[in-house]
Amino acid sequence: MNRHDIALIGFGGVNRALAQIIHERADELTDQLGFALRVVAITDLRLGSLMQADGIDLGEVFAMSPMDTFAGRPGGAAVPQNDFVIRNTTADIVVEATFTNPLDGEPAVSHVRAAIESGKSVATTNKGPVALAGTELNRLAAAHGVTFEYEGSVVSGTPILRFAGETLKGLRVNGVQGILNGTSNYVLGQMESGMTLDDAVAEAQALGYAEADPTADIEGSDVQLKIVILANEILGAQITTADVERRGISEVSAADIIDAAARGSRWKLIGSASRDADGNVVATVEPVALPSTHPLASVSGPTNAVSFDTDLLGTVTVSGPGAGRMETAYALLSDIIAIDAHQRSMIGASE
Amino acid sequence: MNRHDIALIGFGGVNRALAQIIHERADELTDQLGFALRVVAITDLRLGSLMQADGIDLGEVFAMSPMDTFAGRPGGAAVPQNDFVIRNTTADIVVEATFTNPLDGEPAVSHVRAAIESGKSVATTNKGPVALAGTELNRLAAAHGVTFEYEGSVVSGTPILRFAGETLKGLRVNGVQGILNGTSNYVLGQMESGMTLDDAVAEAQALGYAEADPTADIEGSDVQLKIVILANEILGAQITTADVERRGISEVSAADIIDAAARGSRWKLIGSASRDADGNVVATVEPVALPSTHPLASVSGPTNAVSFDTDLLGTVTVSGPGAGRMETAYALLSDIIAIDAHQRSMIGASE
Repeated sequence: MNRHDIALIGFGGVNRALAQIIHERADELTDQLGFALRVVAITDLRLGSLMQADGIDLGEVFAMSPMDTFAGRPGGAAVPQNDFVIRNTTADIVVEATFTNPLDGEPAVSHVRAAIESGKSVATTNKGPVALAGTELNRLAAAHGVTFEYEGSVVSGTPILRFAGETLKGLRVNGVQGILNGTSNYVLGQMESGMTLDDAVAEAQALGYAEADPTADIEGSDVQLKIVILANEILGAQITTADVERRGISEVSAADIIDAAARGSRWKLIGSASRDADGNVVATVEPVALPSTHPLASVSGPTNAVSFDTDLLGTVTVSGPGAGRMETAYALLSDIIAIDAHQRSMIGASE
Repeated sequence: MNRHDIALIGFGGVNRALAQIIHERADELTDQLGFALRVVAITDLRLGSLMQADGIDLGEVFAMSPMDTFAGRPGGAAVPQNDFVIRNTTADIVVEATFTNPLDGEPAVSHVRAAIESGKSVATTNKGPVALAGTELNRLAAAHGVTFEYEGSVVSGTPILRFAGETLKGLRVNGVQGILNGTSNYVLGQMESGMTLDDAVAEAQALGYAEADPTADIEGSDVQLKIVILANEILGAQITTADVERRGISEVSAADIIDAAARGSRWKLIGSASRDADGNVVATVEPVALPSTHPLASVSGPTNAVSFDTDLLGTVTVSGPGAGRMETAYALLSDIIAIDAHQRSMIGASE
């Protein structure tokens, strides 16, 4: 029986949900996947750090009182010591789920780098390291014979990257376009019902879709990071956010929405990337009035969707949740499954 | 360099399109997939049969005049000799693309059985053997250490089965529902525009969507075969068409469609299968008036779509073409890629 030992960097909603899946479904997952999972390290800004090579009792961690920290436990400390834990944990897989820093991706980029340099594979839901340092980190992973997976960096657990990379093998994908931000999509839907932008944003905040500062959702910079990831991963581009022209939904007026509805169209914030005639990849983020027959026109509320423009199959579209802690934790489980498959294929190849 | 030798059983639109892909993209596919493809046998009701162990010159086959047969060529005969060719070809993969027989699946079931018994893996787009003898043929393939793949038996090349089996690993799929027949979906759309059922069917025939006898499309028996495949493959059921309650779109009147539109709903022919509280799988085919917010409500014209109801991820939907010769040929290429991966993993495991 194969087993993977996991280090959880950040213990917020997503990594906590992953720990819950591992805790509650250990036997079922082992039966289905052919390997066992064990958490051997946790770090968190508030809880501190915990390293236990024989496996952390997750039941005990979930039962901790709100003011408690890991200090005083065997292998525990009151401070996160992220770099120390990442380099010294006995885990073979490091799961990075700290906050996304859209400027330079830190400290997540350093976390991923430290994990790879110390011979560990990495799963992350963090857009920062993937969008801002993905090329470097993928090269580093290849050089160290480990795997860097990041399904949850785009469209949470809806497996867009794995669909493009695995399920569509044998096709040429010439372009991708998607609804990649649930908050802005929800806001546009509410504006169709007559609400103002400001009221719709306030409602999205009340429902927990939008951040306290909704600028990244409304002005398209969240989608900008995601389209960089899709362009680089699926179209083999090497672009950065600076290469992506960006316009947000604040440019869409109530009158625009009424006009579009009269023509049977719907405004959507679309991230798109495609290869031009010279083979260069052009990527944009902008509000577009889509005709109702367009596969993305009916994607409503917090749902996300990506359409792939392919040579042999035409347009294929995947839609699903774009957020949620359990949904995003599934992305990490899916990454761990991919890391396991990759490790097994390397063992097979070296025999 | 790995290589797969292919026998094409049936040389109608789909297998001809696969031969075209192999002929025109040999080098590109080899680069992308890590293996070469070569056609070493073709059988066809009209052309006869051709077996050439060193590889058939596909350019010559495409250049044949309409009245020509394989008779007189080296390894050629005027008759198809399907069973003989399947058992004696040097191919390691047999691609079955003869017509679907919805009653007993023959002769395709025998073709698949003969291929497996003689140690060959099989790819097929033929619903018959999969829906009517899938359990037996999968067991037989396992016993002979070969692979039986049939992505194109449902939703043509849109990779529904591979998405469920590979991309969604680690999830529990509790139900599937889909728009699985493009003709009936096109007809319902035209009825929404005020056309009668009969006129819409005639138009679908003129456009090449509907068969000369459209009964299987309109009365749901085509979807019945497909939902059996989805239920058995994705939910692990062992049902047959007799277990699937079926109603067709001839039950939907013009008045029903107008009523639904007034409520913001759309009639769709839905194939669905789900696990009930006791773990039994219940499958139906019936017209359903879906609210416009339903992920399948906006799937229009010949497009097909399948929604998966999952535990951790909620509803995930894949939509794409449900027919087309090149689209369906891609399903076969996708099957060949899966067979290659399976063969490699068996070699790895035995070392």
